[in-house]
This record gives sequence, C-alpha cells and structure tokens, in this order.
Amino acid sequence: MKRIHLILLALATGLTAILTGIAIGHDKRPAAPIYGVKLPDGYRNWPVIAPAQEAAPLNELRVVVGNPKAMRAYRDNIRPFPDGTVLVKLAWKHTQSPDFAPASIPGAATTVQVMVKDSKRYAATGGWGYGRFIDGQPVDEAQHRTCHACHAARVKDRDYVFTRYAP
Amino acid sequence: MKRIHLILLALATGLTAILTGIAIGHDKRPAAPIYGVKLPDGYRNWPVIAPAQEAAPLNELRVVVGNPKAMRAYRDNIRPFPDGTVLVKLAWKHTQSPDFAPASIPGAATTVQVMVKDSKRYAATGGWGYGRFIDGQPVDEAQHRTCHACHAARVKDRDYVFTRYAP
Repeated sequence: MKRIHLILLALATGLTAILTGIAIGHDKRPAAPIYGVKLPDGYRNWPVIAPAQEAAPLNELRVVVGNPKAMRAYRDNIRPFPDGTVLVKLAWKHTQSPDFAPASIPGAATTVQVMVKDSKRYAATGGWGYGRFIDGQPVDEAQHRTCHACHAARVKDRDYVFTRYAP
Repeated sequence: MKRIHLILLALATGLTAILTGIAIGHDKRPAAPIYGVKLPDGYRNWPVIAPAQEAAPLNELRVVVGNPKAMRAYRDNIRPFPDGTVLVKLAWKHTQSPDFAPASIPGAATTVQVMVKDSKRYAATGGWGYGRFIDGQPVDEAQHRTCHACHAARVKDRDYVFTRYAP
C-alpha cells in the first residue's frame, strides 16, 4: 500500500506542477487596466454573433464572436447574460477589395475588444469587465475608463450589450 | 452464442435504421441546381475567415466562415484547398445602428452562399461546387451559372477563392 501511496503522490505532484504551469502560462497574458480582463483562449475560433461596420474616422469592419455561454444566451434569448459570458469584437481597417469593385474587406487588424460577465467582480459596472487590446497588449487606463460609460448610456436596457445576433 | 448473435444483429439493425434515418434526413435538405450543393450542418457555429461589405445596389454586410478543413488550409496557407473544404458566406442587409451613429449593422438576412471543394466531382469548375440559398432554398439555375465564371475571371490564381483570412 505504501508503494501505491507514493506513486499516487508522485502523480498528484506531477499533475499539480502541470496545472500550475498552465496557470502561470495563462497569467502571462497581459491584463487590461481597471478590470484585469485578458484575451480569452481560442476566441478566433468562436462563432459569429454579428458583423458591423464603423464609419470614419475609425473606418473599420468588425465581427463580434462569443463563447458557448454567450451563444446560448443569444439563441435562447437569456438576459441578463449569465456569468462566464465572454464577447470578443475583432476589428480591422476597412479597405477596398483589389479583386471586386463593389466589395470592401478587412485591412490591418486594429483592436480586439473583450467583455466578460462576472456579476460579483464587476458589480460596479453592470456586471461587465472590459478589455481593449492592440497587438495583444491592453490599451491604457484612460481608454478603459470610457468603455462602460458609453455602454451604460446607450444600451443599459439590453444588459449593456450593443451587438444583436445576426440571424 | 446464438443469443449473442441475435443481440448483435438487433443492435446492428437498429444502428442501420438510425444511420439511414440520418441520411434520409440529410437528403431532405434542398440541393442547389447544377452542383447539388446543400447548406452544410452547423455552419452558423463555424469560425470567421473574414467579414466584408458590399456596396449598393446589394448594400450588404457579410461574413465568410469555414469548416475545420478550410480553417486549417487558411492558417497553414495550403493551396489548392483540400477536398472537403467548405466555405459559407452569410449576408445581411447593411443598416444603420439605432444605438450608435457611426455604426452600421446587419439587417434582414439575404443570401447564404456555399463553396464545396471536390476536385473530382467538380473538375469542370476548378474543383468547386457552388450553392446560393435564400431562406434555406436554392436560387435558380441561371443564378448558379454565374458563380464560377466570376470566380474564374477574378481569382483563379487563388484557387478561385476571393476571401482572404482576416488576421
């Protein structure tokens, strides 16, 4: 029995080391000021909630994608969004297609913007934490101060979320 | 042993019935003229290749999504796209956001357009089959006759695919 205990202890220690390694790995991702929001793993593979276009001066094409909790909430019309919902908006400069005159397409990537629902942690901002990233790095605190004020002023009645699901 | 054989036979028969049911279910999906292309299962959950905007008269916002083979080919820069690649373009009318002046967003869904790579079946059209659907129903043969001619005229050197991966 002692030998089995030792083996189990060794396995548990190994597992702990691996999980700690993963956790430390995650912690290396830079966190947004104020909210501590990070770019979520794998978001580039998430399903589409909706595209959007933003006029000048930003002049961008955008796509908002959601994690499984977000997609379920949209499709089952669950509001407020449950804790754990994550929305990510990818944005690119809006440029003329070289191949087809009526079309315009993504140019250089600009920002990636994240909303994370955690009703306790972000109770002061309607349950949402915000992160805005350029090239994987969060922008400054002043920019992050603008996020919630705009959402609260315009779409408080939709749980602070602008984007509607595109059918 | 005989009893086990009978049980296995019953299980196999049941499985056959289920698989046949699934196959028949699939066959009910309407097929595009010329190519026999159907709307693929689950495409609304596929990852984004890129958004696009189409000017008047169509005036649309669009997102092209891809199945796993498509995403791998884009990310690993594999051309020509392998057999089994499926690309789907979702399109919506492009309308003003009621919430935020500089933004425009999807209105009503218009078409869903599909490209399927099968180098043998579609050898006459560069290996691609095309399908264009409105409300789940394929449009007419005349419209389908226009697909490949346009792709061949403009993006033959990119394996007939307009959409580039948005980074």
